[in-house]
Amino acid sequence: MGAEAGAGAGPGLTLGELAVRLGCELDGDPDARVSGVATLQHAGPGQLSFLANPAYRQALAQTAATVVVLAAEDAGDCPTAALVHTNPYAAYARAAALLHPSPGFDAGVHPSAVVSAAAEIDPGASIGAHVTVEAGARIGAGVRLGPGCVVMQDSVIGAGSALVARVSVGPGVRVGERCLLHPGVVLGADGFGIAQDAGRWIKVPQVGGVVIGNDVEIGANTTIDRGAIGDTVIEDGVKLDNQIQVAHNVHIGAHTAIAAMVGIAGSTRIGSHCMIAGQAGIGGHLEICDRVVLIGRAMVTHSIREPGMYGSGIPVEEAREWRRGVARYRQLAKTGERLRRLERRLDKLTGEGPDRDSDD
Amino acid sequence: MGAEAGAGAGPGLTLGELAVRLGCELDGDPDARVSGVATLQHAGPGQLSFLANPAYRQALAQTAATVVVLAAEDAGDCPTAALVHTNPYAAYARAAALLHPSPGFDAGVHPSAVVSAAAEIDPGASIGAHVTVEAGARIGAGVRLGPGCVVMQDSVIGAGSALVARVSVGPGVRVGERCLLHPGVVLGADGFGIAQDAGRWIKVPQVGGVVIGNDVEIGANTTIDRGAIGDTVIEDGVKLDNQIQVAHNVHIGAHTAIAAMVGIAGSTRIGSHCMIAGQAGIGGHLEICDRVVLIGRAMVTHSIREPGMYGSGIPVEEAREWRRGVARYRQLAKTGERLRRLERRLDKLTGEGPDRDSDD
Amino acid sequence: MGAEAGAGAGPGLTLGELAVRLGCELDGDPDARVSGVATLQHAGPGQLSFLANPAYRQALAQTAATVVVLAAEDAGDCPTAALVHTNPYAAYARAAALLHPSPGFDAGVHPSAVVSAAAEIDPGASIGAHVTVEAGARIGAGVRLGPGCVVMQDSVIGAGSALVARVSVGPGVRVGERCLLHPGVVLGADGFGIAQDAGRWIKVPQVGGVVIGNDVEIGANTTIDRGAIGDTVIEDGVKLDNQIQVAHNVHIGAHTAIAAMVGIAGSTRIGSHCMIAGQAGIGGHLEICDRVVLIGRAMVTHSIREPGMYGSGIPVEEAREWRRGVARYRQLAKTGERLRRLERRLDKLTGEGPDRDSDD
Repeated sequence: MGAEAGAGAGPGLTLGELAVRLGCELDGDPDARVSGVATLQHAGPGQLSFLANPAYRQALAQTAATVVVLAAEDAGDCPTAALVHTNPYAAYARAAALLHPSPGFDAGVHPSAVVSAAAEIDPGASIGAHVTVEAGARIGAGVRLGPGCVVMQDSVIGAGSALVARVSVGPGVRVGERCLLHPGVVLGADGFGIAQDAGRWIKVPQVGGVVIGNDVEIGANTTIDRGAIGDTVIEDGVKLDNQIQVAHNVHIGAHTAIAAMVGIAGSTRIGSHCMIAGQAGIGGHLEICDRVVLIGRAMVTHSIREPGMYGSGIPVEEAREWRRGVARYRQLAKTGERLRRLERRLDKLTGEGPDRDSDD
Repeated sequence: MGAEAGAGAGPGLTLGELAVRLGCELDGDPDARVSGVATLQHAGPGQLSFLANPAYRQALAQTAATVVVLAAEDAGDCPTAALVHTNPYAAYARAAALLHPSPGFDAGVHPSAVVSAAAEIDPGASIGAHVTVEAGARIGAGVRLGPGCVVMQDSVIGAGSALVARVSVGPGVRVGERCLLHPGVVLGADGFGIAQDAGRWIKVPQVGGVVIGNDVEIGANTTIDRGAIGDTVIEDGVKLDNQIQVAHNVHIGAHTAIAAMVGIAGSTRIGSHCMIAGQAGIGGHLEICDRVVLIGRAMVTHSIREPGMYGSGIPVEEAREWRRGVARYRQLAKTGERLRRLERRLDKLTGEGPDRDSDD
Repeated sequence: MGAEAGAGAGPGLTLGELAVRLGCELDGDPDARVSGVATLQHAGPGQLSFLANPAYRQALAQTAATVVVLAAEDAGDCPTAALVHTNPYAAYARAAALLHPSPGFDAGVHPSAVVSAAAEIDPGASIGAHVTVEAGARIGAGVRLGPGCVVMQDSVIGAGSALVARVSVGPGVRVGERCLLHPGVVLGADGFGIAQDAGRWIKVPQVGGVVIGNDVEIGANTTIDRGAIGDTVIEDGVKLDNQIQVAHNVHIGAHTAIAAMVGIAGSTRIGSHCMIAGQAGIGGHLEICDRVVLIGRAMVTHSIREPGMYGSGIPVEEAREWRRGVARYRQLAKTGERLRRLERRLDKLTGEGPDRDSDD
């Protein structure tokens, strides 16, 4: 299944065509054809594979693929035809897109869709089953709104974007062009704005919007809240995985990629070209500069002003060892006292003064 | 965009009207009008702003707002008209609600909705496109069920509540009055009840319900499971942000506020007036007393019986420093041994006894 | 409410019937009837309760239940009729399923559903309101697709499975038999595959699928991505709670249970019979062997090759204490230096050599 059913395999291409379209050097028969992709280990005749991670070099020798996309330094070890590229993973991504083209769709509005007469739907857009489009919304050319999507009043979906299924777009949200929003995404729900008033909470109206740039991908069940005042902004080329929470007035810079389950609290500004691994948490009102890499589960409570890689957290241990570690951590105050006492005793014994850097 | 499109700006109010309705003292022209809100920095003529956080005092001097809501101590520095209140943030929240009223909606059942003949729908309720309401459900006056909502059998939605879009309400769930449930919320799915049986899991039927009080707000994609036996309970005035998980038989006390991505395991009882920051995790069968504040990412494994602020976790460091810190943490057992050895050597040298508190 | 409304109480059974069907020894009147379940504390006449956790032994003496399911060692303390079983929790689970049978449903396709003429729908399946089933999908006997579900092209839902409401099943996904998928579940969205290309990200097509075994339960708003190449696999009997993220090409072994908000990064392989508590995070490309137990919030960055229990993280402290702890943790490098200096001074004083294990 997998490869065939996943994105639908196309009729195939010759290696010669692929070499031209991918900008690769071909070492092999330009007339050989491939019609799908597979891993080095599982590929068979008619399939294209790739080597981008040195860990898989061993699999290269055994592969039964028809052709392998790889870097020049690995070409000598390739037992099959080779498509050589300086960035084999990107070249593979393009090859896979050519071999597994997205299924087409028919333009038009499904009879079950409920579309306001006051919405503008481009004739080249596809509005699927059980979709709701409210007044004032504008749906661009080539847009696909999959089953069950909701686009509320005055929102804009830019040309070529796809909302796969069951995506909610709140009022006044702007989505750019060529975006891909997976099922369960919620854009433009109210931010979490509440004010204390005599022991109760009163709602602070969230009157800002959400602005999503071009070429943004947003994973399943990710939520991006509307701004309290002013907009929550996701710049061009940002890639968000599943179940991410982006709070009101967050700003994410262009070409930043964020893995699943990351939480970003209100008004935080993340730079461009950052990479944030899964389950990281970033506090509110912080600044993360460009080109910051956060390791999984990173807990960010202060701004980060230098590009680089940052992490936190203590990985798992066997449970008894974990509990002992926690107990020792709790005793660090006493550890400090014992050190100080030893230092003083030794000073007294030797007659030396406290020359050390004892700031604990 | 933002302010205008977000919640829709109203026709505006005079400062005199606002002063009366907000209970503020007005310093300025009572006939001047405002029609929307903005930050101190971005506000222009015809807009109202506020100063609630001392960090923004500098912006006050430069603001072009027509009026600023602020506290008496800041009124002297205000270059424009001022609406003075002891709690400027709450007064601002009320002003914003007056200036950006929620859009109205038409009562009635959309033709695409599927409503059981055995459901009770108040004539003043609005049942949107592609909504499903099952038998025995009761939908109160002024309720708004937005596109794609599902209310299953025998559930009750109290007067004035709004389910924005794509909210699922399982069977037999009771939602109070004036609640606001954002897209993707799931109430009353089965709790995670499984019993070991010869190496396999068998399902423990989840026969309890969910009871939500009045004036509760629930953020996008938050899930609240039904009880295993007896109900999961969210009391009046509780405010929940996005992507929160509330397990079966949890009880959350009145006016507690919980930020995004918090997880609360089964049968835990949280007091009233608590504030829980994002990504905190609270174990099962615990008690958190009233007025507890949990810092973001707090990991709660024991009950908390004293009001106060609690936290855990070690914030990010540059990656090499982080790895060194983990290594040093792992060596704490050896650190303790070295301390003990030093103490013993020094005791021997000085002839002193072990008078210290050496419990490591 | 709760018990009655939750799963619907049935007409009841005699204790004699229950003893036979559960394989229990009955101590009491076989003709007495029960029609629902309740906790020991809240049960009244006509209700069945259970004792599986020693912490509730005290409640046993006071219970007004008609019958209690319990272990032989507790039978002597039971003031009411008893159903004695070696695994009282599993026996209770079966009793509750008998007393609160799932509501039946009518086979057939709701008029509002949009079902492709090229889909195969078993005549015994129930296709609910606002459901979408695309071309090539196959829906088995006794399947229930609740309101708002979407099953995309070429996907298969095995006999007896239920998608409660608003579940999205991407193209080419296979779901086994007797599975239970709660609202908001997203199966087969694209995995997070992106390749760097001159400072931009290009999408790596996700051409694999998702294969879900039999008897799998998946909690509300959980997301399981399709494979990049090859499938993401969930084996038989796996139980997943709410808001779990399963990335592309993850493999979860049979009868593993995972609590809410756990994140599993790409290509990780988890064994069978594992138990993973809430908010754990497991890095990518790891192997977790069979019968591993992870404590809540466990952070797994390396493979685990030995069965056993593992944990990480430091639980909450009062906030000032927490901050002090973090400060002491940051000083561990200095603590090590001070220890070394003390050791050297003492060596010099005593003329002894560095016999110790000083590897910090």
